[in-house]
Amino acid sequence: VLVAAALPGVPEVHAGDDLAVLLVEAAGRLTDGDVLVVAHKIVSKAEGRTVALVDVAPGRRARELAAEHGKDPRVVEVILRESSAVVRSRPGVLICRTHHGFVCANAGVDASNAGAAGQLVLLPSDPDASARDLRRRLRELTGVAPGIVIADSFGRAWRVGQCDVAIGVAGLAPAEDWRGRADAWGRPLEATIIAIADEAAAAADLTRGKDTREPAVLVRGLERHVSEGDGPGAAALVRARAEDLFL
Amino acid sequence: VLVAAALPGVPEVHAGDDLAVLLVEAAGRLTDGDVLVVAHKIVSKAEGRTVALVDVAPGRRARELAAEHGKDPRVVEVILRESSAVVRSRPGVLICRTHHGFVCANAGVDASNAGAAGQLVLLPSDPDASARDLRRRLRELTGVAPGIVIADSFGRAWRVGQCDVAIGVAGLAPAEDWRGRADAWGRPLEATIIAIADEAAAAADLTRGKDTREPAVLVRGLERHVSEGDGPGAAALVRARAEDLFL
Repeated sequence: VLVAAALPGVPEVHAGDDLAVLLVEAAGRLTDGDVLVVAHKIVSKAEGRTVALVDVAPGRRARELAAEHGKDPRVVEVILRESSAVVRSRPGVLICRTHHGFVCANAGVDASNAGAAGQLVLLPSDPDASARDLRRRLRELTGVAPGIVIADSFGRAWRVGQCDVAIGVAGLAPAEDWRGRADAWGRPLEATIIAIADEAAAAADLTRGKDTREPAVLVRGLERHVSEGDGPGAAALVRARAEDLFL
Repeated sequence: VLVAAALPGVPEVHAGDDLAVLLVEAAGRLTDGDVLVVAHKIVSKAEGRTVALVDVAPGRRARELAAEHGKDPRVVEVILRESSAVVRSRPGVLICRTHHGFVCANAGVDASNAGAAGQLVLLPSDPDASARDLRRRLRELTGVAPGIVIADSFGRAWRVGQCDVAIGVAGLAPAEDWRGRADAWGRPLEATIIAIADEAAAAADLTRGKDTREPAVLVRGLERHVSEGDGPGAAALVRARAEDLFL
């Protein structure tokens, strides 16, 4: 049985805050095998991964793209800094590959829920490291090391709407590999790798509104995927460029 | 709070079976606002949407593609029949757009969990109609009309692994549109459409193994997305060809 519940009472997060302390206060008692799914925005804010628009001087390419797309050239400048490539560009739409390898709109740069006008929130520089740090700190505070998923909402090719996915993971198997194992009738399963951490992020997203401050969700029922070690992280969910058919 | 639990004791399904009867026996009492997530395979089997390989005569294109991909030409023939287009083709990989508009490996044609050697399971012809039919029949049997999601595991562009998504929906909002609404700080949210039915499919998938017969999952906590009418179905989650940047 899977049970997911948004944590009540997580306060507004500021640069330098100890997120683990805030989460422990909101979560109450943690149990071995718990998973905490945390919206990347509070991780980014705690880490100071925000940019004030007034501090941004757009370069030439940003100004050109902004004119094409009807966007603020300063926002486009920040998006380009966060991108290793612009994968597709259409009026109003910039789909980018980030330096981490994630493909998403605007390289994950977002003004929604940023908390102050004129502020952009970026993705964490190294979300897997952020997840590991948060886990280590939770273990220090509580003696329990829950699985950690740092989540963001990504659009998808071919399908309408966004689903939350894992951009940082620690202590949870990001994927479960069933290749070579047998189905219920004993025949080998083909090409079945289940993106556990992405499904956990999606499940957590169902428990919270976008207009409420519920940036963290406790998920129970994933004990068999939670590990003592931190594991390979969400980096294992990034398809290598050479193997990707849609870049 | 979201609670998802696989239904125990759903028997093997055969063509002509009344799925609603089997699900009611397994689910026990249903409550208004419940959502049932059902693996498409049992829907397809009940509807007779299976093909015996011995009955398939591969055409020329299937024989050519099969030779390139090292696949059984009869399997490729069935995949082509289910496809409106082959979106990408690489050795061992055929990513197709189905007649419904879904983009997935092998047009959803699958031999895993098919239940008999030499049998392929296809996607339902009209999964939204299948969802509506199942919902109507459940209402007849129990007086309660749960939201229905028919799910399949799809790979994704750019990311490793598969997530379950909704291919048929009735009585559940497939997506929740937050565009024009405000974030927690009162500023307008941009481009936020949450694919509720896909996230529900993903959450349900976390509760079951691929080697167990647990083809149906009861999800509670989505009451606010469950509707009296059947709604637009999973068809609303298919991005129109003209708007898709990755076809």
